[in-house]
Amino acid sequence: MPSKTLNIGLIGYGFMGRTHSNAYKRVNDFFDLDYRVNLKAVCGRNEENVKAFAEQWGYDSYETDWKALIARDDIDAVDICTPNNFHKEIAIAAAEAGKMILCEKPLALNVEEGEEMVAAIEKAGVANTVWYNYRRVPAVTLAKQLIDEGRLGKIFHYRANFLQDWTIDAELPQGGEGLWRMDAAVAGSGVTGDLLAHCIDTALWLNGNMKDVSAMTETFVKEREHVLTGKKEPVTIDDACTFMGHFENGSLGLFESTRYARGHKALYTLEINGEKASIKWDLHDLHRLEYFDHADDSLVRGWRSVHVTDGDMPYMDKWWVPGLQIGYEHTFVHQVADFVENLSKGEPTGPTFADALETQKVCDAVLKSAATRQWENV
Amino acid sequence: MPSKTLNIGLIGYGFMGRTHSNAYKRVNDFFDLDYRVNLKAVCGRNEENVKAFAEQWGYDSYETDWKALIARDDIDAVDICTPNNFHKEIAIAAAEAGKMILCEKPLALNVEEGEEMVAAIEKAGVANTVWYNYRRVPAVTLAKQLIDEGRLGKIFHYRANFLQDWTIDAELPQGGEGLWRMDAAVAGSGVTGDLLAHCIDTALWLNGNMKDVSAMTETFVKEREHVLTGKKEPVTIDDACTFMGHFENGSLGLFESTRYARGHKALYTLEINGEKASIKWDLHDLHRLEYFDHADDSLVRGWRSVHVTDGDMPYMDKWWVPGLQIGYEHTFVHQVADFVENLSKGEPTGPTFADALETQKVCDAVLKSAATRQWENV
Amino acid sequence: MPSKTLNIGLIGYGFMGRTHSNAYKRVNDFFDLDYRVNLKAVCGRNEENVKAFAEQWGYDSYETDWKALIARDDIDAVDICTPNNFHKEIAIAAAEAGKMILCEKPLALNVEEGEEMVAAIEKAGVANTVWYNYRRVPAVTLAKQLIDEGRLGKIFHYRANFLQDWTIDAELPQGGEGLWRMDAAVAGSGVTGDLLAHCIDTALWLNGNMKDVSAMTETFVKEREHVLTGKKEPVTIDDACTFMGHFENGSLGLFESTRYARGHKALYTLEINGEKASIKWDLHDLHRLEYFDHADDSLVRGWRSVHVTDGDMPYMDKWWVPGLQIGYEHTFVHQVADFVENLSKGEPTGPTFADALETQKVCDAVLKSAATRQWENV
Amino acid sequence: MPSKTLNIGLIGYGFMGRTHSNAYKRVNDFFDLDYRVNLKAVCGRNEENVKAFAEQWGYDSYETDWKALIARDDIDAVDICTPNNFHKEIAIAAAEAGKMILCEKPLALNVEEGEEMVAAIEKAGVANTVWYNYRRVPAVTLAKQLIDEGRLGKIFHYRANFLQDWTIDAELPQGGEGLWRMDAAVAGSGVTGDLLAHCIDTALWLNGNMKDVSAMTETFVKEREHVLTGKKEPVTIDDACTFMGHFENGSLGLFESTRYARGHKALYTLEINGEKASIKWDLHDLHRLEYFDHADDSLVRGWRSVHVTDGDMPYMDKWWVPGLQIGYEHTFVHQVADFVENLSKGEPTGPTFADALETQKVCDAVLKSAATRQWENV
Repeated sequence: MPSKTLNIGLIGYGFMGRTHSNAYKRVNDFFDLDYRVNLKAVCGRNEENVKAFAEQWGYDSYETDWKALIARDDIDAVDICTPNNFHKEIAIAAAEAGKMILCEKPLALNVEEGEEMVAAIEKAGVANTVWYNYRRVPAVTLAKQLIDEGRLGKIFHYRANFLQDWTIDAELPQGGEGLWRMDAAVAGSGVTGDLLAHCIDTALWLNGNMKDVSAMTETFVKEREHVLTGKKEPVTIDDACTFMGHFENGSLGLFESTRYARGHKALYTLEINGEKASIKWDLHDLHRLEYFDHADDSLVRGWRSVHVTDGDMPYMDKWWVPGLQIGYEHTFVHQVADFVENLSKGEPTGPTFADALETQKVCDAVLKSAATRQWENV
Repeated sequence: MPSKTLNIGLIGYGFMGRTHSNAYKRVNDFFDLDYRVNLKAVCGRNEENVKAFAEQWGYDSYETDWKALIARDDIDAVDICTPNNFHKEIAIAAAEAGKMILCEKPLALNVEEGEEMVAAIEKAGVANTVWYNYRRVPAVTLAKQLIDEGRLGKIFHYRANFLQDWTIDAELPQGGEGLWRMDAAVAGSGVTGDLLAHCIDTALWLNGNMKDVSAMTETFVKEREHVLTGKKEPVTIDDACTFMGHFENGSLGLFESTRYARGHKALYTLEINGEKASIKWDLHDLHRLEYFDHADDSLVRGWRSVHVTDGDMPYMDKWWVPGLQIGYEHTFVHQVADFVENLSKGEPTGPTFADALETQKVCDAVLKSAATRQWENV
Repeated sequence: MPSKTLNIGLIGYGFMGRTHSNAYKRVNDFFDLDYRVNLKAVCGRNEENVKAFAEQWGYDSYETDWKALIARDDIDAVDICTPNNFHKEIAIAAAEAGKMILCEKPLALNVEEGEEMVAAIEKAGVANTVWYNYRRVPAVTLAKQLIDEGRLGKIFHYRANFLQDWTIDAELPQGGEGLWRMDAAVAGSGVTGDLLAHCIDTALWLNGNMKDVSAMTETFVKEREHVLTGKKEPVTIDDACTFMGHFENGSLGLFESTRYARGHKALYTLEINGEKASIKWDLHDLHRLEYFDHADDSLVRGWRSVHVTDGDMPYMDKWWVPGLQIGYEHTFVHQVADFVENLSKGEPTGPTFADALETQKVCDAVLKSAATRQWENV
Repeated sequence: MPSKTLNIGLIGYGFMGRTHSNAYKRVNDFFDLDYRVNLKAVCGRNEENVKAFAEQWGYDSYETDWKALIARDDIDAVDICTPNNFHKEIAIAAAEAGKMILCEKPLALNVEEGEEMVAAIEKAGVANTVWYNYRRVPAVTLAKQLIDEGRLGKIFHYRANFLQDWTIDAELPQGGEGLWRMDAAVAGSGVTGDLLAHCIDTALWLNGNMKDVSAMTETFVKEREHVLTGKKEPVTIDDACTFMGHFENGSLGLFESTRYARGHKALYTLEINGEKASIKWDLHDLHRLEYFDHADDSLVRGWRSVHVTDGDMPYMDKWWVPGLQIGYEHTFVHQVADFVENLSKGEPTGPTFADALETQKVCDAVLKSAATRQWENV
């Protein structure tokens, strides 16, 4: 049973605020940890709303000023769930206050901000992690394990895409609380930072760093009404982004993301082709891993659909029984569990801020390449 | 926000104890209800274990005698998670004590027991439900909605199976705490009560009652070591059970269950063929519903794979965003949510004890038919 | 190169007449055989139509009386593609004339007829085969090979179905040239002889003979206009048939067929569950075999989708290159190729008349069981 | 019935020689045409082999000098199945001789050659076509029909890939008769001309011409033994090629091809995302088309798996019955059928030499971009 308490202060309470709160509340039910995770405080600018959120989720208290939250002695870890343009300021202040930090992805608006943030947490020496949650889908974690065991051999190809279709309607507005992801001033970029960043984080984790990229972006709908001004304004984000490039291990990368792929809700797929074996995964059926092993007897060789629900598979001993799938939200529970376990061991929890900065570097190179129409080094 | 409290007393704390406890703990985070569900007490015979369980899950207290738990004034609802052979005695005692009852499936060891239980809860007039949780997989609930809207038209065929492979090893023992499902004295039957009962509950809900059945059972491994005696003893359960029959609506039913289907962990599938449309579902990918609509333009007519994750689909407005799947455990959360909502409205929550008795009648007819090698009326 | 000629006389020129003619014409292009197969004559009652068919397909000649065809000295082998009620008479006459016989399935209207036919060909000592073509889908032939190698171990379950949806419309008439399959006087039965017979032939080939069955049939539309009389008349065939039973090897069988399963065109699927491995196949994707091997490393164990297009797989060295699929018609080419090869070797080509009689026995037991509502021995 | 004869002279008798010969032999069995297609002569340099091929397939005669074949008066159409480096010379000579020409793809080694060939056939005014056979997979033809009907609306994305794994083994040699596709001097390029050319032809047909591209190529194995010299020599082809670009209709294109994608035999897939609907297709299951229609009722909206085997679907009235699939070779039969029908009508049969030149322009731009690491206009 937990002998210590980890008090969380959450800043921002939108969609990600819910996924994180759920993770903190559930982790001790399923994982045997040294710390009991406690929902100490949540912070938001609108008092009525933040109070309701605190009551709904059982936070002990709430704040309306994030600086006040950071200043509290009873907060051990700060969780940053704000729009992207606040990440840097809050993270640096939290680091200076000696708080652990769990920051939503992408790390920052750009590499420059990210470097300041990394410098701050390194100076402060505080535990930190960034919520690239898909690393902890059991099937993806299993892929990492298989690669690390050398089962794929030399890698030739890594490809990933993240396809959605929710912004096709030209009447959809941009900006404001709900649609800040469509405003580059707040989000930093469009699909590159929102979706491709996930693909890149997983790719660097599974396949190592990238050397260079050539990219293409597109904004299909050029103007949309802005929620805050009520006027038609230019759309500043990338609706779609495609890039190719080279990994340091000699393999080729191919990535695509869009919010204009009719029929796909959140189709994050990845595939890795190695000399000896290949792997495929798809967020729409996240509990399955496709695996092809060339060493199989040729008469019965084929892609295996592995139902990742057995107790010997990553994280799955904590949940139910074989055949019974878990879902999206569990990835966040796993990240909290790993963060707390690593805290006990004094070890970092990837992706750290430093890891996320590598992803940011690829994102920035991608956006630059799209602008210059040149290959760019990462 | 909830203005009232519903105090739960849980009896039994095995696999189902975990799924129910999780449901009680999570329901208020996601559903807006009049009652806050409270984990008041858990009961088990082994004090050390039940105490640990209570601490793990945050129960206010524990008991080691279920009669003591039922006698407590601070318990509103009793949840029965014991092996099947205790269901009747506990349910009747709880009803007599005026407690609401949430009982694990199957309702009872046989129809006679079930009838006593139904009589008891009807006399007591207490709210009741049986945990046939698969009704509340969103895809299955959606199937019910589509059928009720008349989209399938006249039904010709209903088929379902529940295939597993975990008892193939002849060295697997039987009995005791972990393997009581392999002992007919405790479980009532083998796959019929454990697996087919789920298929039957869903079938009666979606397609109405059955008239008659013809069944076949098999016990592939005739003797296994018994955990409690340490000796080889006859296996008393059915390892596999197949039956066919007629529904009252004129459609044909075909059901199969086994624990000897190599390659299937918990493959519960169902398919319904109607005059106008058909539906398929598979527990291994529970977040998808397959739908075929004959009215589609013939050039582009085909089975549609519906990713049941949108906000207009049953229960899904409570969870995440389109494309992000939920899992097995959520079905229990949904049942608690419905139970509490119906409590506010004074309405029953299916499957009630009376509903579950209908399923028991089919199970008993199936087992009888297998024994007599005759068609049996339900 | 072929040094000898095999002259074919085809009786009947409907759908099956086309598939067989195609097989005869193509076999020497792809298989290296001792005989060149020659389309010598085709026979049909309507001279205009049979003449057109002969010209279309390149038959050397045509006949309008099957007895005349059988009497010709230049015919080596008679192919019977007539409606089922003519099989017996023609086959016996052909045998008596010393012709080889290739007969469409099912062998006969019933076991009695089948026994006469077997007696006739055995007496005559002529080469014979029945066109249960699905044995020679490469994926199915591969399944046979895997089973014979012992890869599945002891078999527990065999299940198959054949689902269609083309007779749901109650306005569809019955009888006549095009719809004789809906008239029991001509076809012998409905889905049992037309569809289940295929499932049974494959099952007996892969899994051995059956001991007993319990069956249920249904005729959903009770009356249909008869093409020959223009009047509404009772429908005499079974629209749907389900049966279960025991194989001699101790495994359980489950079979279903219907023409009322909306969404399925010709969904013939089979699955075999063994102690060590399982196999699945589906006619709708006939070039794939699903294979599950329990001996696989548990971390990457799953159903393998084998794309049966490689040169080391049955028959596939004769066609294209890996990844390029063949289709339905090739099964008939394979059967002709095997028939001709076996002719050179003096060996029988399964399914022989004797094999097909075993299938007929199961069909008759199934229909009897459905009538008596009793278990029936095969 | 055919009243005229079309005499074919085939040059080259490798893998493609077989697929074309089969198409010529089968087309009149299934299509009602004005011309009977006749296998008049086949030409190859090795007399023994070409004679055997002629006998195997039933050619009336053979030649060992392609110029002799072209000079024959009894040849109406010349089919060029040689390695790519002979296409130009033969095609120009055949055009000058007034022969119709059916040329294997890619059209030529490069745009310059292609332009000479187009000039020659235009000057001669002869019927011509290039064997980009995948246009005539019924599912792909259906896709074209759906797009032309406007069902997809404005197109946002077109993506395709062609993945194989047969050259991963570093011991595989290059060059010679069997492996000329691995020798750029003979083939022109590697996967770009062999595989991507197929993807590009289909893309231009379905989605219009491209404006510009940015490409990346890779040769993973740098040296291989050359069959003709017996020595290790540099590999001159591209093992993998990825490119992105813009279509003239404003949509984005993404293409990838490789022979190093372990687990894929011939995985040619394409996907088109439009404002109203999307389409997917996969050569490994070529008889299916995936279709998503956003106008569907949201409760039952999903990707439809259309089994392209019904009589109202392109070409399928010529073959069997719903549910029974055709295969790879049928695409060639369809192309011959269309060629002959268009001959009767005096209309061109796409892809013509001029169409194939557009594909060649994209291929050349792709290879140039990979070399310059710049965007290149098509």
